[in-house]
Parts: sequence; structure tokens; C-alpha cells
Amino acid sequence: MLDDSRDGRGHRVVDAHTRALVEPSSDVIAASTSDPKEDLRLERARASFNSRELEVLLAGGKDNYKLRQRIASVMTTNEAFSKRGKYFDERDELYERTLRMYLALPSAVASMNEKEPIAVARIMRELIDEPGGLDLHLGMFIPTIQGQGDEEQRKYWIPKCVKLECVGTYAQTELGHGTYLRGLETTATYDEEREEFVVHSPTLTSTKWWPGGLGKTSTHAVVMARLFTKGVDHGVHPFVVQIRDNKTHEPLPGCTIGDIGNKMGYNAVDNGFLRFDHVRVQRRAMLMGHSKVERDGTYVPAPVAKVSYGTMVFIRSDIVMNAALYMKKAVTIAIRYNLVRRQSNADEVTGMECQVIDYQHSQRTLFPILAKAFAFHCTSDYMRRMYFEFQRDSREKKDFSALPELHATSSGLKAYCSWATKDAIEACRLTCGGHGYMNLAGFGTTLATYAPNVTYEGDNNVLCLQTARYLLKAHRKMLNGQPPVDALRYLDGASSRSALALGASLRDEKAILDAYAHRAWRLVTEASKVTGDLSPDEAMRVHMVQWIGAAKAHCAFVVMYNFVLAYDETRSRVSAETLNVLHRLVCLHGLCGMDDTMGEFLEDGHIDGEQAAEIRQEIFKLLSEIRPDAAALVDSFGLHDYFLNSALGAKDGDVYRRLYEEVQAAPFNRKHTPPGYTELLQPKLSRGNFGVSKL
Amino acid sequence: MLDDSRDGRGHRVVDAHTRALVEPSSDVIAASTSDPKEDLRLERARASFNSRELEVLLAGGKDNYKLRQRIASVMTTNEAFSKRGKYFDERDELYERTLRMYLALPSAVASMNEKEPIAVARIMRELIDEPGGLDLHLGMFIPTIQGQGDEEQRKYWIPKCVKLECVGTYAQTELGHGTYLRGLETTATYDEEREEFVVHSPTLTSTKWWPGGLGKTSTHAVVMARLFTKGVDHGVHPFVVQIRDNKTHEPLPGCTIGDIGNKMGYNAVDNGFLRFDHVRVQRRAMLMGHSKVERDGTYVPAPVAKVSYGTMVFIRSDIVMNAALYMKKAVTIAIRYNLVRRQSNADEVTGMECQVIDYQHSQRTLFPILAKAFAFHCTSDYMRRMYFEFQRDSREKKDFSALPELHATSSGLKAYCSWATKDAIEACRLTCGGHGYMNLAGFGTTLATYAPNVTYEGDNNVLCLQTARYLLKAHRKMLNGQPPVDALRYLDGASSRSALALGASLRDEKAILDAYAHRAWRLVTEASKVTGDLSPDEAMRVHMVQWIGAAKAHCAFVVMYNFVLAYDETRSRVSAETLNVLHRLVCLHGLCGMDDTMGEFLEDGHIDGEQAAEIRQEIFKLLSEIRPDAAALVDSFGLHDYFLNSALGAKDGDVYRRLYEEVQAAPFNRKHTPPGYTELLQPKLSRGNFGVSKL
Repeated sequence: MLDDSRDGRGHRVVDAHTRALVEPSSDVIAASTSDPKEDLRLERARASFNSRELEVLLAGGKDNYKLRQRIASVMTTNEAFSKRGKYFDERDELYERTLRMYLALPSAVASMNEKEPIAVARIMRELIDEPGGLDLHLGMFIPTIQGQGDEEQRKYWIPKCVKLECVGTYAQTELGHGTYLRGLETTATYDEEREEFVVHSPTLTSTKWWPGGLGKTSTHAVVMARLFTKGVDHGVHPFVVQIRDNKTHEPLPGCTIGDIGNKMGYNAVDNGFLRFDHVRVQRRAMLMGHSKVERDGTYVPAPVAKVSYGTMVFIRSDIVMNAALYMKKAVTIAIRYNLVRRQSNADEVTGMECQVIDYQHSQRTLFPILAKAFAFHCTSDYMRRMYFEFQRDSREKKDFSALPELHATSSGLKAYCSWATKDAIEACRLTCGGHGYMNLAGFGTTLATYAPNVTYEGDNNVLCLQTARYLLKAHRKMLNGQPPVDALRYLDGASSRSALALGASLRDEKAILDAYAHRAWRLVTEASKVTGDLSPDEAMRVHMVQWIGAAKAHCAFVVMYNFVLAYDETRSRVSAETLNVLHRLVCLHGLCGMDDTMGEFLEDGHIDGEQAAEIRQEIFKLLSEIRPDAAALVDSFGLHDYFLNSALGAKDGDVYRRLYEEVQAAPFNRKHTPPGYTELLQPKLSRGNFGVSKL
Repeated sequence: MLDDSRDGRGHRVVDAHTRALVEPSSDVIAASTSDPKEDLRLERARASFNSRELEVLLAGGKDNYKLRQRIASVMTTNEAFSKRGKYFDERDELYERTLRMYLALPSAVASMNEKEPIAVARIMRELIDEPGGLDLHLGMFIPTIQGQGDEEQRKYWIPKCVKLECVGTYAQTELGHGTYLRGLETTATYDEEREEFVVHSPTLTSTKWWPGGLGKTSTHAVVMARLFTKGVDHGVHPFVVQIRDNKTHEPLPGCTIGDIGNKMGYNAVDNGFLRFDHVRVQRRAMLMGHSKVERDGTYVPAPVAKVSYGTMVFIRSDIVMNAALYMKKAVTIAIRYNLVRRQSNADEVTGMECQVIDYQHSQRTLFPILAKAFAFHCTSDYMRRMYFEFQRDSREKKDFSALPELHATSSGLKAYCSWATKDAIEACRLTCGGHGYMNLAGFGTTLATYAPNVTYEGDNNVLCLQTARYLLKAHRKMLNGQPPVDALRYLDGASSRSALALGASLRDEKAILDAYAHRAWRLVTEASKVTGDLSPDEAMRVHMVQWIGAAKAHCAFVVMYNFVLAYDETRSRVSAETLNVLHRLVCLHGLCGMDDTMGEFLEDGHIDGEQAAEIRQEIFKLLSEIRPDAAALVDSFGLHDYFLNSALGAKDGDVYRRLYEEVQAAPFNRKHTPPGYTELLQPKLSRGNFGVSKL
């Protein structure tokens, strides 16, 4: 059946007869295939604007742009940061690879000799793009000691942390309680006689569960536990507890510790569990920057409550920034692949199949995500500014008045943006067909690692309730004639009929914004109406759906508002061509957001059916206008191939060669036989070859 | 800092002083915690109907119900089928575990001594719930030879296949082409002189890519290749080609084969790649049940084109059945966990925290999915019936007239149901908070393995286009006065104003169905209008979004129609209580489907704003009515713990104990140190312990 002639080196020799027979058909086929690299080159050439100009703007100026370039080149030339074969890593390999990267950070940062090493480290971690066993040490253990310890405690701990003499985690979540912090059950009971706390896990559900780096990496933990002194429960407080022996790395007596096993993603992190059996720590294990317990057991509460909310706002603005980043990542990969993937009947003139981006559905999926990435970018800029203003005012003028608004809006935006990004990553993947499902595409791991953003730092639905509660309170005040805070002034006097679609106004970004304002006003009003006199606790449970709806509508407004604002501010800073492209994106973002939830605009007649249809048509027009700039727009995000780590999304478009070459390294390809072959498969298979020679 | 007193066996000894100090607080906490097993017991007790009655109905009668019970008990007592530790498997372990299960099937089936062994094997594979390296051998290689081979070929191959003397795969998809079959590039060129085909991969993109079991398992493949005879391209045909040496398992000369590496899921399957370098096979390697090539190279086309469409319909009805199954799986896990998870301020009377299912958002998410699982169950029943009717008519009466409708509807339903299920699995996971992200919850692997359903067997968007094309054709005929086929008669005379919300009609399932009919009619009409005289190829590309919208609206109608029909048929077969519960589910399914896409009903005024608000309120009412039956309803799906394989969703509700016990087996927990400890971490860490003794 098979021609098995080979030359001396085992290469196959095809005789001239066979080659002659096959060549014609090969030629026919070769003519109809395309060159993906050339496709992408041509796409870049047709852009209506200079993508470098936009890239510099998004990077925050030329210096930042160059810094990013330099950082990427440092990392891609340092073997410690290599991502080669990463998509085939088993869990222990992934853990170790990531730990190695994190440990290589300090010297890599130092080697760059930059003025702001922390900013450099931040960008490097962004490029590593994988949370690891040291993540909570850097991101929570150190900051918590800094923020909640007193001066003496900071002086004692921080140098040890920086030198990695200890590795810490932040042990808050328990088997039984997550977002609802007041339900935590771990206790820290003060023993006046010995001047010690006894840290204890009284129930199965009080087992600490989830802390990153706890499973195997950490020697210490900030443990959030209910403080009891003199029989009184003072609520949850932070305690620094050593949990592993520094010499042997074994759990210390009274501590039961382990890893919680594989998760959908985050598998470079050893999320762990931890139980305490009456573990004694000294009085000063409690972080005493705010509240204190004195030697005799007297509890001294914090002078200003909620002082730590500022940090939460900062972390949430980080999540919004990350939302923009991962939206950019997913849409860069998807747009580049959609530009080179060809799939259709061959065109009669060119003989080429059609680029899949020219299927309307691809554009309707991908371009609004592209626009949203810009919108989120602007929103995270805004949050950061708000946060720094608040910090300045609270420090310099002891003015904390912005906190409620800041807290409410940042809660909602964290939810709104992380939901949208999680959905966008999956939507982008789906536009890439089967190949999007391979690890090498980059979507699977991106989605799996991004997904917990909607749950951690406060479950998104619960965060929406916090936003809604604030909105409803403000609404009630407005009904009573009190003026709203600046940020909510838009809720006042929202018009009852949209001006959109009357003439050219579908490209009037402010008219679009007005529609968002109206929708938010209406949904806040309705949520307020159904809530009536119910207690907030009761109301948020039984009217949760409408409360969440109101919060989302507010956030949609805030995002659109910031996009419009940033666009206005950009006017004087970029060329007319770039501004033109940005304007299309602002309008597309605004109109698609309406089209996707059109029922909310139609329900009270703010928009009528005719306008809805016009909006849809205008969206299709915008998609066609944006189409030639698709390649240049994702280029402007400036995402390095090292960060993207995607065979489908690399800058040169050489998709098929990359896929083919990279799979050769898959561990399954080390042998010709599968695992279990000798025991399971071989005994069944016929020993002789057979084809169809007998037929 | 630490009390390290231990008894002789290394157990920790806590002194009486410490115990006395801590006990009071433990008691306080213990009183406020709940018993999840008891929670679930109480939930079952409050059901308004007998869940066993419904379970038997869904299983298809008492005999089937009992058969399923017996099969589950055979599998759970056979070590070969064990899923213990599966969620911590690395890829080779998962591959081998799954291969072992598949190889254990024949004797397990035989041991049951049932009349219908194929049905038994089918249920067993469903319970294994993991596609493996033999999946395509059973699911595609054998069926293709059976369906497309001639009698002699079947006689030659099938016995070998059944005895596993060879393992086959189905090599269709290539690096460059998936859903668009006509673009496949692999060639099979007939050499009249030697009476052989030369199978060849002329380009990089012609590399076969994705076939399951190809990477390492298979010895043979059905290769889909473009047939050339006498220089003429006859399009894609199937060829059986041996690709590995049966003795050594090495690729045969001219074949380059390997595994394509890790994917988001499906990692028990060795999806592979395959290149041919002028590989010669005999003439009879071509499967000749339909078209043939004679010795002299004469091509004889198949007598009836599209005869194989029937099989596609069958496979798609399978996907719809699976959609129902995986929706049931996800919602069973989520509802059970939401019933035992408690999270809120403690109730003033009971001292208990609130079950998270009593947050309205959980109900609004989970109960519509519960209802949809029933709707899809009924829809797959209907498709199967349609398929068997067609088979009978085509065999007995040579009547193929039902095929176009069957094909169009099954395409759309495959897309509609698989999309909905993929989204539902993720939505269910999100209602389970952080724990839903652990592999032990069962969502991650379920989603990852379910996800490709929206891509394989035809990308969902492309399938929607096929449905739309059929609908638009029918619509054009109707405009010309020709009566539509039975299944589309509903598009005729759809009313312009919904009767819903006038009085009690919100519980009138037929009035709800009418609204679905109207929406479908409107969207088909609009898609038809924008399409105008464009060629279908052009139109489906540039008006793709509206075409897909029309197809989805049609499918939503068909699903609702089948649910209503099945409900009607059930009237005489179940008790009034059960019927009452089913009626709520039908209405909930109908109304939520409207609420989720309300813009489509509001746009032309079929529903007005007031009705929309009433529908929303009615949904909230229905949720409260269904709430007491939640536990019993998921019980009625009869999903065995072995199938669910979820610490959150097990029947007894013992969530926290399961999580804690099962993670102990995680491979990371074999040692106290993490991977890379000695080389990477130990050199950094301080050698001495330190707590806060100096502060």
C-alpha cells in the first residue's frame, strides 16, 4: 500500500513519475493561497492615520513609550524571562518558571538604572503576564504591613520582606466566607496573662482558603481574624503570623497548610488553605497602625474609620487599567488573525478567499471591543486622577469628602469593566474559530487567568449593590431638593426624548452621552421606586436585579463620559487624521452600547423604533469606516509579541508557520507512542500492517 | 512566638488555659453556622411535587430510569472508571485514565447483559463525561466507513475496527480550512498506470490539523482530500489511509504526524496534525459507497447528492441533547451550592445567614437556565423524532422532501442550543463565587470541554447563515403567494400587537409563543428587506448580523414551540402538582427569553413599555413560586454524583467537607516545599525563624 523508499538519511524519495503526477494540482492550489505576512503588511499600509502617533499618546508620551521599548528588549534578551514552551507546562513547571521570573525581577530592574524602579518593575510584571507564588507577597503582604502596621512594625518587617528573608501572604477569605467579610470566623483571642493572642480556626468553614502563595511558598501570613479581648468581639483585624519553619519549610506546630489544587487558571500560584489550632502569637503580631490592643487587653479603636478605603479604590483602579490591557490583548490577537485568515469561495477576480474580518459579524464583534478598550483606557486614567486628588486632599486638607463618591463609583467600575473584559476575551476567541481554542492562540490562558477579576476584590454583583445603594441615597436626596454631588449632577434633568437620529446627530458624541444619562436616571428612579421604605439589606436582596441594572447604567454613563472627555482633551494634541479615527471609536462605543441594550432605551420611549433602526445602520456604517484602520489601531496599543505570546496574534502575521513550529515542542511529541501505550493499546492492536490491498 | 508543645505522636497539645480562653468564642460562632446537609434535606422536604415522578418522565419511563441506575452502579463499583483525583491530573495522566475507561467499556457493557448494548455504551460514555483518544474511532471513523464505504469495504474494515486491531481517526480539518470544506487543499491524485492514489499535502496550510486521536493514538485515518482524476478536480472525497506502523507505532514513510499540544480543554484527546508527502494508496482506499473511481480513472459521481446530510442532522440532534445534559449538569451544581451557601448579616430571629439563592440575582440567573434545560430536553426529543421520521420516509418511500427543512432547522438549533449552554455553564459558575473557580467545583473542565461545541460540526455563525438562507428563501416564496412548509407556517399572519399582559395572559404559554412567532416573522422580513437582490454569498457576508438575528429568532421560536408542545403532551401523564411546576417553567422560559432581548419586541411596538415592565414583574413572581421547588427540580434530572463529579454539587450537599478532603490529594501536597524550592527559594529565605518577639 505504501511506497516506503527513502534515501540514506531516512528522507523520503519521491520518484519523478509521482512528482509529475502531483505537481499540476499543487500549482493550482498554490495560486489560490495567500501570504498572511503580506496581508498584514498591506493592511498597515492602508491606514488613514499614523499608528505611531496614537501609540505614543496611549503610552503617555514619548519617554514612557521609549521606556516600554527598552524594558521589552531587556526582558526578551534575558533567558530567565523566557516564555518558550510555556503553553505546554504542567503545573509544577509553570509554578517554577513563574517563580524564576519574579526572582529575576530585582536585578533586571536594577540593570536598567531608571529613576523610577517601581514603575519599571510594574511594567515588567505586566509583561510577564502571569501571577505567581510571590504575587501576594508583593501585592498584599507588604502593602498591608505598610498601610496597617505602625512605624515600629513597618521598620521591623519591610526590610525583611524586601530581602525575601520571609515570604508572606494575605489570609482573609475562608472556606465559608468571601466577599462578606463580617462573616469571617477565625479568632484571635487576647490572653492578658501571657500578653499573647491565640489564633484559632473554630470550625471547618473557618479554614483560610484561597490566599495566593499560601499553599507552598509563604513562611508568614497576614491573617484576618476576629479580635476578642475581655470576651468582646471587635470584628476583623490583621495579625502577622509565622506559619512555616524557615529552615525546613514545614508548617509550624498548630498550623495545617496545603495547596487547594488546580483551578481554571492561576496555576502558577499556589493558592492554599490554612487552619490554626490555638496558635499563640505575641501581642505585637497585631498590626497596630490604626486600632490597638494594650498590654492589659484594652482595645483602642482606629481614630478614623474607613481610612483604608483609599487603598481599595487604588486596587480597583488597577483592575480597570488591567481590564483595558486585557481587552487590548484579546482584540489585538483576534483582529490580526481575522485579517490574515481567509475563508470563503474564491473571489472571481483575484482568486483569493475572503479575509474573515470582512464578514460583518466579525466586525460587529471586534470593533466595539476595540473601541471599549480605548474607553476603559480613558476611564482608568480618570480613576487614577480621582484617587490621587483624593489622596492629596485627604493628606493636605484632611478632606475625606470625596470618599463616598470615589468608593461607590470605583466599586461599580471595577465590576462593569471586569465583566466586559471577561466577556470580550471569550468573544474575541470565538471569532478565531477552532484555532482560538489552542493554548498557542493565547486566549484560553488569558481568559482563565482574567476570569477571577469578576470575583475577587469584591464579587461584582455585590459591588454593584454598593454603587446602587449610593445612587439611591443620592436620588432620594435630590427628590427632597438637595443638590447632588458633582459626579451625579447628570442625573438631574435628563431629557425624556432623545435627540439622536434627528439629522446628523448620530455622530454627536454628546447627544449619545445624553441618552446614557437618561437611561441611568430612569433606572435609578425605578430602582428607587420599587425599593420604597424597605431596609437597604432587605431591598438589595429582593430587588437585586433592578439595583444591579441601575448601577450598570450609571457605570456605562461614567465610561462613556470619560471617553468623550478624553477625546475632547485630545483635540489639541493629535493630528486631524488621528482625531477623526478616535471620533469614530467614541461614536461606535456609544452607539453599540445602546444597540446591545436597546430595550432599556425603548421601554420609556426615549428612543423609538425608527431611531433604533437608524442607530443600527449607523453602526454598520462606522464598522466599514473603521475597517481600513483595524491593523493600525491594534498596532497603536503597542503590545509586544513577548506579552501577547500568541501564534495567532504576533505582529508579523505569520500564523501558520508559528503554529506548526511551536507544536513540535509539545511534550506529547517526545515519543511516537501515547502514555499507557505498552500496557493498554499495544496488546489490542493487530501486529501486522494492513491497508486495502485485499479489496 | 509559637507554642510548639506536642505529644509523643506529634499531635499538638493545647493546654487547658488556652482552651478555656478560646472555647467561649468558638461557641458563639458555632451557633451561627449551619449544616449544609440539613439545608438540602429541608429544601427537598418543602417541594410542592414528587421529584421522582418527574425524574422517571425525563428518563423516558420506568425501564430507562432503572437501567440508568443499574449502569451507574456498575460503573461506580469498577475501579477502571474511577474519577478519583481526576481534577489534579496532568495531561498524560488524563489521557491514560480516559483511554483506560474507554477500553473497559466493552466488558462493562457485556457484563450487564442488556438487550441494547449500544444504548448501554452510550449512557456509559455519557457518565465518563470525557472525550478520549478513541472518541473519533467510535464516533467518526467507524460511522464514516459504514456510511460511505461500499459493502465490501464495510466487511473488510468494520470487524477490524470493532476488535481494535486498528484505531482510526477522521482527518478533515486543515491548518488553513475548517468549516469551509470546499477550501481543503490535501490532494488524492489518481495514477492510472499503477492504479493508486497519491495523497499529498501541497502547502503548509493543507496540513491536517485537529483530528482527535490522530496525535498519538491512531494507526489509520479517513482522510478527506480533493480527488483528481485525469487532471480534473472532483472535490473532497474520503480515503482510508494507514498512517502508523502497527508494530512500532511509528509514522509510516511519507507521513509526518504529531500532537498539537494543550488546548483549553479536551486534553484527554490527542488532537493531531498530519502531513503527506506523496503517499501512495491503492485505488480501493477511496470509500466507494457513493462516488467511485474505476480502474481506468473514470469518475462515477454519487447517484443522489446530499445523501449524507441525514447523518449530519443526527449528529446535530446529539449536540442539542448534549446541550440539555450540560445545562442540567451546571445548574444542578449551582443550585445545590446556592442552597447551602450562606452569606449575609445574620437574621435577627434565626441567627442564620441567608442562603445565597435568596438573593434575587441568583434566582434570575439560575431558574431560567433550569427552565431552558427542560426546553432543550424537549427540543432534542423533537429533533430525534424528526430525524427518525425522515429516515423512515427516505427508506420506505424514497421521500427526501423533509431534508431541506430538517437540515436548516437542525443547523440553527445546534448553534442556538450550544451557545446558550456554553453561556449557561459560565453563568452558573459565577453564581458560585470563588469556589466555582476551583477544578473541584466541576465548572471549569465542563466549560472547557463543552466550549468547542460552538465551533465544531460547523461554526455556529455559519450554521445560522444556513438557517437564515432557508428562511429567506421561504419568505420570498410566501411573498409570491406560495404556502410555506408546515414548520414555517407560523411565520404567516403573525399579529402586529401582542396580547400579553392584558389580564392573566402572562401565564398563557400560547400567547407567549405568539410573541416569539411575531418576532421571528419581523426579523426574517427585515433581513429579507435589506438583502434585496444581492447574491446569497454577498448578502450573508455584508448583512450577516441581521441574518444571524433572523436565524436566532426562528430557533427561539422552535425551542419555545417544542417546550409548549411537550407540556401539552405531558398533561395526561403526570400529577397535577408536577404539571403545575412544569407550567411555571414553560412560562418562565418564555418570558425570560423575551425580557433578555426586549428591544426586539419593543422596536416595532409588538410589546409596549408597560407590558415590558409587567413581564419583568411576572418573572419575579415566577421566581418566588419556583424557589421552594429548586432542590427537587434539579433532583428530577437524576444526575448521578459520579457524573457531576463536583464538590459543590453532590447530592448530599456536604460541600465544605468534600472540598477540604479532596484537596488533600492534590499533587502539590505531596511535599511541604514547592517546585524549585532548593534552587530558587531556600537560598533567599532567612535561615532563622522570626516573628514579632522583638517588637
